[in-house]
Amino acid sequence: MQITLNSPLDMHLHLRDGEMLKLVAPLSAKYFSWALVMPNLSPSIKTKEDIIAYKTRILEATKWEQFIPYMSVFFQKNLNYEILKELKNEILVVKMYPDGVTTNSSWGVKSIDLWEIGHIFEAMQKLEIPLSIHGETNDFILDREKNFLPTYELLASTYPKLKIIMEHITNKESISLLKKYDNLFATITLHHLSITLDDVIGWMLCPHNFCKPIAKTESDRQALLALALEADEKIMFWSDSAPHPKEKKESWNGSAGVFTAPIILPMLVELFEKHNKLENLEKFISKNAQKIYGIQAVKKEIILEKKDFLIPDMYGNVVPFFAGKIISWSVKE
Amino acid sequence: MQITLNSPLDMHLHLRDGEMLKLVAPLSAKYFSWALVMPNLSPSIKTKEDIIAYKTRILEATKWEQFIPYMSVFFQKNLNYEILKELKNEILVVKMYPDGVTTNSSWGVKSIDLWEIGHIFEAMQKLEIPLSIHGETNDFILDREKNFLPTYELLASTYPKLKIIMEHITNKESISLLKKYDNLFATITLHHLSITLDDVIGWMLCPHNFCKPIAKTESDRQALLALALEADEKIMFWSDSAPHPKEKKESWNGSAGVFTAPIILPMLVELFEKHNKLENLEKFISKNAQKIYGIQAVKKEIILEKKDFLIPDMYGNVVPFFAGKIISWSVKE
Repeated sequence: MQITLNSPLDMHLHLRDGEMLKLVAPLSAKYFSWALVMPNLSPSIKTKEDIIAYKTRILEATKWEQFIPYMSVFFQKNLNYEILKELKNEILVVKMYPDGVTTNSSWGVKSIDLWEIGHIFEAMQKLEIPLSIHGETNDFILDREKNFLPTYELLASTYPKLKIIMEHITNKESISLLKKYDNLFATITLHHLSITLDDVIGWMLCPHNFCKPIAKTESDRQALLALALEADEKIMFWSDSAPHPKEKKESWNGSAGVFTAPIILPMLVELFEKHNKLENLEKFISKNAQKIYGIQAVKKEIILEKKDFLIPDMYGNVVPFFAGKIISWSVKE
Repeated sequence: MQITLNSPLDMHLHLRDGEMLKLVAPLSAKYFSWALVMPNLSPSIKTKEDIIAYKTRILEATKWEQFIPYMSVFFQKNLNYEILKELKNEILVVKMYPDGVTTNSSWGVKSIDLWEIGHIFEAMQKLEIPLSIHGETNDFILDREKNFLPTYELLASTYPKLKIIMEHITNKESISLLKKYDNLFATITLHHLSITLDDVIGWMLCPHNFCKPIAKTESDRQALLALALEADEKIMFWSDSAPHPKEKKESWNGSAGVFTAPIILPMLVELFEKHNKLENLEKFISKNAQKIYGIQAVKKEIILEKKDFLIPDMYGNVVPFFAGKIISWSVKE
């Protein structure tokens, strides 16, 4: 049995830089048509020159003609209409991190003060540049996403033509808000469809399941799964694949992020097949995003066959998500 | 400035066995008058012979005349009046673990069926042997303690003369239940007075703060702290000091348990001093337990002086709680 996926897109990918970029970029390029690359390097990607230079390094690392890295720029308070106009052709989104919520996000905004930065959102609305947000506050770990929802609501209602992407949503409250505003869209990761907080701290401590936002309850997971399986038009897949070397994960002070890039397609096919929803998978991993961003993906067919795939213990110095697990689908090489 | 503590007691201590026992037992013996030692070895401590042999190994490891290890036995369904009567002089409590909730607890009970095991509680009540319970279910990690409360309530109301120890309580709901029944008592750890879930998974992943029950919210911590600072008579200190080698904590599959034994007294003195409650500390770490268990502690004075104490990075192969932190009190050597 085989299945062909047309132009899978990864709408949120961390490719890092240097040696790590060389290790992980080919693993995404092999299976995806394009990806939206996150700017949280150290220092972060802020200027046109940063973007072009980073894109060049990615293309060198992938050596793959059929893989297009779409770029993003780090939200900063000095952005304005002129700068955004100049950046527009280089980026797909402006990416906003609240201060301190994830890897290299300490340059992020501390609060959203529309009086001070509203003109940036107005400019983005006018230029039709979507705003992508890691929507978490710095509150108690399990309240962070929920407590950020009023900010999404403020932005969505104040700038009704600004497309706002609620990144990697993980709970039912976010789903309710998503449905309330036409200009809100959301992305869901493979790992938030697969695990709950119990898989991080419920039994033993599992650093390779530790990510931000943290995985929530089983009923949250079920709600996300229902949305993904129906390929709701406001939902896009994105991996948030975030590699860290093994020693940075299994540490006294472990980094957040799970590395899923090379296992996404087999796992998603297995998941959608299990729930008899294979016909919706292409919408979830490609068509919805094309529609939301108003772009057309490069044609690229990925064939998967029903054949056991043992997830390796390591890719280079990175432990992948679900290392050692056997998946019933493989990408045809 | 100096302070003298009379006969500090550690009402819940994991001393392990073999090399680990030799490493950690002297660190408790140095600072405590006696300790109640947990039976969750592998295999667990179940018979009179097990108890006596383990106690002998502990005494050999401590080589400290003024330290008495009180023993406990693992709750098992084959206990009965005769067995308990024979064990009574060897143990202070019967210790019950629900199946699978912590290190080496897989021999624990799966559910509390009074029809099947009620005669054991009746025998304990008659023999005046307290029941000490790690009160957690196997549900979602943050609900486990809360969901066990009905079982505490069933036992407390069915056996009103049985002293029941709610071990290492961590949330407000447990405090409410504790106050409801005269025969319920509880213990509180240093780590649950010191950290919240944010210190485990809130920012980086901190395996040396990973314990069971997992630390909860700041308002739970504040409620526990209020009870401890007042040295409420139903509350005893216990460390639940649970050493694991560094490599078992900083692992792809990390063990639960924090190692606090050698830092407890300085940290507690600092904490009680900060809140102007030093006069209650001796009740919390000694007198309340003596009253609850109806025993008299061996006299042993521990003198602490106001002098910086840098918590070492390691004790042998074990990373202590708050490694590297400076505490304003030291035990006078």
